[in-house]
Formats: sequence, structure tokens, C-alpha cells
Amino acid sequence: MSKSPTSKSPVLEFWHEFASTYSYPAAMRVERAARARGVRIAWRPFLLGPIFKAQGFSSSPFVVNETKGANMWRDVARICARDGLRFVRPAVFPQNTLLAARVELCLPQDQRGAFARAVYALEYGDGADISGREAIAALLSRHGKDADALLAQAESAETKAALRAAGEDAAARGIFGSPSFVTADGELFWGNDRLEHALDWACGDRWGLEA
Amino acid sequence: MSKSPTSKSPVLEFWHEFASTYSYPAAMRVERAARARGVRIAWRPFLLGPIFKAQGFSSSPFVVNETKGANMWRDVARICARDGLRFVRPAVFPQNTLLAARVELCLPQDQRGAFARAVYALEYGDGADISGREAIAALLSRHGKDADALLAQAESAETKAALRAAGEDAAARGIFGSPSFVTADGELFWGNDRLEHALDWACGDRWGLEA
Repeated sequence: MSKSPTSKSPVLEFWHEFASTYSYPAAMRVERAARARGVRIAWRPFLLGPIFKAQGFSSSPFVVNETKGANMWRDVARICARDGLRFVRPAVFPQNTLLAARVELCLPQDQRGAFARAVYALEYGDGADISGREAIAALLSRHGKDADALLAQAESAETKAALRAAGEDAAARGIFGSPSFVTADGELFWGNDRLEHALDWACGDRWGLEA
Repeated sequence: MSKSPTSKSPVLEFWHEFASTYSYPAAMRVERAARARGVRIAWRPFLLGPIFKAQGFSSSPFVVNETKGANMWRDVARICARDGLRFVRPAVFPQNTLLAARVELCLPQDQRGAFARAVYALEYGDGADISGREAIAALLSRHGKDADALLAQAESAETKAALRAAGEDAAARGIFGSPSFVTADGELFWGNDRLEHALDWACGDRWGLEA
């Protein structure tokens, strides 16, 4: 049963790092799945690098643990096939996602989903490099945006500070990976495979779990 | 549609370490879910410790990364609530599971599921210590087994060698965590949340993925 979200609908924060592989299938389905439950998605871009470093890790667990990393690539390929998504492994992993995250922060909430999906589709659907100014500018132009103006805003001191603040928000919520879902009452769910659990919780279903 | 598995049914290996939290809800549902798809489960107990050590890690990722570990306990509590399973966090994590794994290896396949479910229910349903000889002996006696004979067999040189060989089998399959599912053609799926994917694959559904 589909109930279109309204301003009174529960809100679920969708925290996503553009370098994260599992965030690609999550980004492609999160808004559709939320709409079906009458939940609004708040798109929250952030960087995982500073969080990994603060926890004493030099990189993604998929880089630190090669065996786990090898299985991750196969698993993401399977998940994309299952979800009907194209998947091409990019030459570089993880990519530098600083600019993409800053640009998303400059967009209003109702334009963030389309931008994020376009970035993930380019990165993991086409296997392209999304780290450079040219790639992001071309993507914005294809979507009818004023790329020069948006990139200038993305590189302003205000946006840089806003992205650092988002990272502090993420850490304060206990976030340690991407994608993560956080409900209005602060419940944290990690991983593409927890979206349905997070939507249950956002809708008030605690499955009888005591607080 | 339920199709009872026969000797000609596809087989899915269920690799499980008794210390693993997510292996508890997996063990409680794996046989029911497999039966509904006409798949037979091969119960494969193993130890993760030697695999972590060979990969250069001192312990479980949930111990190494405290933030991730804290969320794991909450997540497992939620999953158990969602699945209708009791859950009590044991005082010690991870527990020493050497004896439990050796005992399961001594049982024929058609008795392993009941034993494994009883161990997991004691450990994570009751929050009990399952590392000691007394706990395992009492559990075996409650299930009508000759505990003394089984424990003697579990502690024989033959069983010790068989468990070491199982660990080598696990490593050869690329296993790096528990639970893991491996199909007859060697496809490896990691995690309770991948059981449905593994059953699809075991039944021949590759979702259009090229080999």
C-alpha cells in the first residue's frame, strides 16, 4: 500500500558516502521504498574517511581486508544483477568523493536524490571516475544545472564548513559505515540490507523490542 | 511453495562459528528457509579465530572496531525481535567455541541442525556460557545423547584433526566471516542477510549475471 509522504510523514535520514559500493543499490531504491511506506527521506551526504581515521583505520575495511574486499565486489555485482542495476567496477577504489559530496550539500533536499543517483550510476553503473571537476560539471550540465555556479558554491568556505559539520553529525549519531539510516528518535541502521528494518522503525514498528 | 528436499536436491553449505552473533538467527531459520526452496543444508561448523589470525587480525571486527561492535549488539537484538527469537547478550564475547564445534563434527548431518540450534539458543537466547564441558554435556543429556561418549569422541585426535581440516576447507572457499553459505559450484555468500540470495543461486537463479 503506497502512501505519498507529506510534511507530517516520518523522516528517515539516508547517510551516504559516494565512495561506498553498497550505497549505490541503496541510493537507487531508497526513495521508492520509503514512498511505499509513507516515509520521507532526508539525503545526508558525508565523508567516511575522517570517521575511519578517527577510529584508527587507514581505509575502508574492504581495502584493509583483501579477502573480504574480493567477496564484496562479487556480492555487489550479484546485488546489482538481482536489482536490475548495471554494474561496472571502477578502476580506482575508493574514489575521492569530496566534490560530489559538497555539490550535493548545495542542493535543496528535493533535488539531492536525483543528483546522488546520477553520481552513483556514473561511478558504479558505468565504472567511471567521479572524482574530478570535469566529470561532475558534465553531469550537472546534463541535468540542466548551472554547473559553474554550483561548483563555485560547492568550493566556497561555507560549503566546506557544512560538509565538515555533516561529518561531525554523522560521528555523533554513531555512524561508522555507509549507507546508514537514522530515524527521528536516533535509531541507527547500517547497510543497504537494513533499509526495510529502518523503514519499519520509522513507521513505529519496534517488533516488540523493549527500549 | 514447499518442496521437501531429496537426495537429488541442491546442497547449500552452511558454515557457522558458534561465537558469531549473526549466526544465531541464521541457524534458527536456515533449514526452514532451505526446505521451502527444496534445498538441502550441509552443516559445516568451523572456527573463525585461525582465519582472522591468518588475515592479520587479532579478533572479531566487532571487537577491533568498538563503534561497529556497539551497533552490532543493537542490530542483533532488533533482528531477533523481528524474527521472534529470544536474545540475551552473554557476559563474554567472543566465547571459546572449540568444544561445541568439535561435538557438532562428531554428529551425522541429520543431527547437526538440532545440536547447533540448541547451542546458539543457549548462548544468545539465554545469554549463557557455552565454552565449558559441563554446559555442553548438560545440553547433550537434555537432548537424549550419551554425553560422555560424545565428549570423548569430540576430544579425540581424529576429531581435532577434522576440525583443523574444516578450517582449511573454509579458508580455501574464501570464507572470512560467519555465517557463510557456499553453493555446489563454489559461490560464496556472507551473512545472515544473504541466505535468500544463496538459496536463489543454489536453485540455479543467477539473476542474469554473467559468470
